[in-house]
Amino acid sequence: MARIEDIANKLNVSKGTVSKALNGAPDVSETLRKSVLETAVELGYSRYQRKKGAKCLCIFVENMSYAEPKDFGYDIILGFRKMAEPGGYTVEVVDLTPQLQHEIPYDEYMLQQNYAGALFLGLSLADEWIGQLRTSRTPAVLYDNYIQDNPNTTYVGVDNSEGMHLAIDHLWQLGHRKIGYLSSAMGAYVYQVRYSAFQRAILQYDPHWDEALSGSAYLTTDCLQKHLPRLLDGGVTAILCSHDQLANSVMLHCQELGLRVPEDISIVGFDDLPISAYTAPPMTTVLQDREELGKSAFYAMNSQLRDTPVSTLLLHAKLIVRSSTGPAADRTPRVG
Amino acid sequence: MARIEDIANKLNVSKGTVSKALNGAPDVSETLRKSVLETAVELGYSRYQRKKGAKCLCIFVENMSYAEPKDFGYDIILGFRKMAEPGGYTVEVVDLTPQLQHEIPYDEYMLQQNYAGALFLGLSLADEWIGQLRTSRTPAVLYDNYIQDNPNTTYVGVDNSEGMHLAIDHLWQLGHRKIGYLSSAMGAYVYQVRYSAFQRAILQYDPHWDEALSGSAYLTTDCLQKHLPRLLDGGVTAILCSHDQLANSVMLHCQELGLRVPEDISIVGFDDLPISAYTAPPMTTVLQDREELGKSAFYAMNSQLRDTPVSTLLLHAKLIVRSSTGPAADRTPRVG
Repeated sequence: MARIEDIANKLNVSKGTVSKALNGAPDVSETLRKSVLETAVELGYSRYQRKKGAKCLCIFVENMSYAEPKDFGYDIILGFRKMAEPGGYTVEVVDLTPQLQHEIPYDEYMLQQNYAGALFLGLSLADEWIGQLRTSRTPAVLYDNYIQDNPNTTYVGVDNSEGMHLAIDHLWQLGHRKIGYLSSAMGAYVYQVRYSAFQRAILQYDPHWDEALSGSAYLTTDCLQKHLPRLLDGGVTAILCSHDQLANSVMLHCQELGLRVPEDISIVGFDDLPISAYTAPPMTTVLQDREELGKSAFYAMNSQLRDTPVSTLLLHAKLIVRSSTGPAADRTPRVG
Repeated sequence: MARIEDIANKLNVSKGTVSKALNGAPDVSETLRKSVLETAVELGYSRYQRKKGAKCLCIFVENMSYAEPKDFGYDIILGFRKMAEPGGYTVEVVDLTPQLQHEIPYDEYMLQQNYAGALFLGLSLADEWIGQLRTSRTPAVLYDNYIQDNPNTTYVGVDNSEGMHLAIDHLWQLGHRKIGYLSSAMGAYVYQVRYSAFQRAILQYDPHWDEALSGSAYLTTDCLQKHLPRLLDGGVTAILCSHDQLANSVMLHCQELGLRVPEDISIVGFDDLPISAYTAPPMTTVLQDREELGKSAFYAMNSQLRDTPVSTLLLHAKLIVRSSTGPAADRTPRVG
């Protein structure tokens, strides 16, 4: 591991100057400060090693509303804090905007802010920093994102294979034999994983399952207008959705089309968002235990900081059966 | 959760009798003791809940030699103990013989022995208890085995996908373009996972990779006599093996055939067994950090005992480059 001395030697400045630059002292020019940070990153110098007392972790959220009590991130952050703070860490929540990612490289930002490690909630495959995470040396725990070959990253999430299997098994027991799948666009790792998990699971029950009974789109309206009619025409009696918000939209849209849920069609979500117990009807969905996810994320972070890297940590999935699913209706496919 | 009272009611005996039977008191008949244990299991009664002070965990090994210092299990057991014992647990190592599995159901054995949970090292898909683990209510951590849909089991292992990717990338950088794969029989979950991981990874580098360049067999001699000649005739310049022992046999056999390792052929193992640094030549292989696996297994066990079930916990893989790999030789396929 690089020391302050190494940075000083490389830049031909004094150790004191490097130290001042790293601490953001006002008497160091912006150009020099930038060189010092860049060199520090290049040499693999870690802020964590610099100041043993200063243990600060950050949680990046793609959208600050994500961190509000009604939303998905809140309990994850809570769980993470519950483990981190008694361990002597402070935890800060940071808005992960495209601007931030564009302005400063990830490692440099972490060093500048004196963060020992980061938890990412909701990084998409199009995010600028995701490429940098492949080679970053700063401990990072990624909720629902997997980066191969970088020991400094851990993927934390729910066991999507198990979740899909539980959901399909539930529908199958209810007599459903034509099951459709709708998803958000595959630009997020987790939607790719869920769709493959769905495919593997459905083929165990129905080896002749037809891919035409599935569809994905970036916009929910495209999903509803482009794919849903095809699924309904194909005679599906149940639709599994990649996440609860989509499931709720599908449910509402089916009802607008005059279909009763679950009498005419069963709908299953994924995530068990706080609102999903209050949709009409209340939604059958796959639970992710969010507080436990946060705690597990801290365990993974701690393993990173102790240099014993965890690659993947998945929690068991659990099916929450509510009223959006019921016995299969007799829906013979509409004739063209 | 069932209490002693529930067992007593169900069997129409006194609570004292149930308690005596559970504790193996000599004045309870063998028949009654058996009924009590069976009823306890049936009702989901947990020994752990019965006696808060008695916290004992067990580690099942398929073969006691596995637990010796030179072998794979030793450091896993050590790591597990390092975490468990300061936490107030005692840990016992138990020989997992077919006889034991045949004599007594798993849950019943755990209850009888007063074990709060078990770590399994080396369970094969043919083992009698593996079926019971699908529905067992006793916390179990399985090294290199994944059981879907039972929240009481956790799969702990190394990230095999990452390991295979690292190994293939290393060979590709050395100029290898025809890479073969040899494996033990697919009767073990981990060999299935590694073979799929190998396939996924090799297809990223060589979309036209031919499955004929791979082979698996229960007996190493079958691998050497049945598959190895085909791979060599097919012109492979490198062979990746499912585990170190096989890699060492392949290496020796290639040398007997007059091929130099790595000048004529490169060989890569998987596991980094203690002996693999001392083979001739020392073996390039994928490291599993065994002590950390043991520690992670305890973390998973502890999560089970706290009712926050982890499904999967994988450690990062690491490639250890030694001398069994080198630049690709010019090996044009032998003609007829």
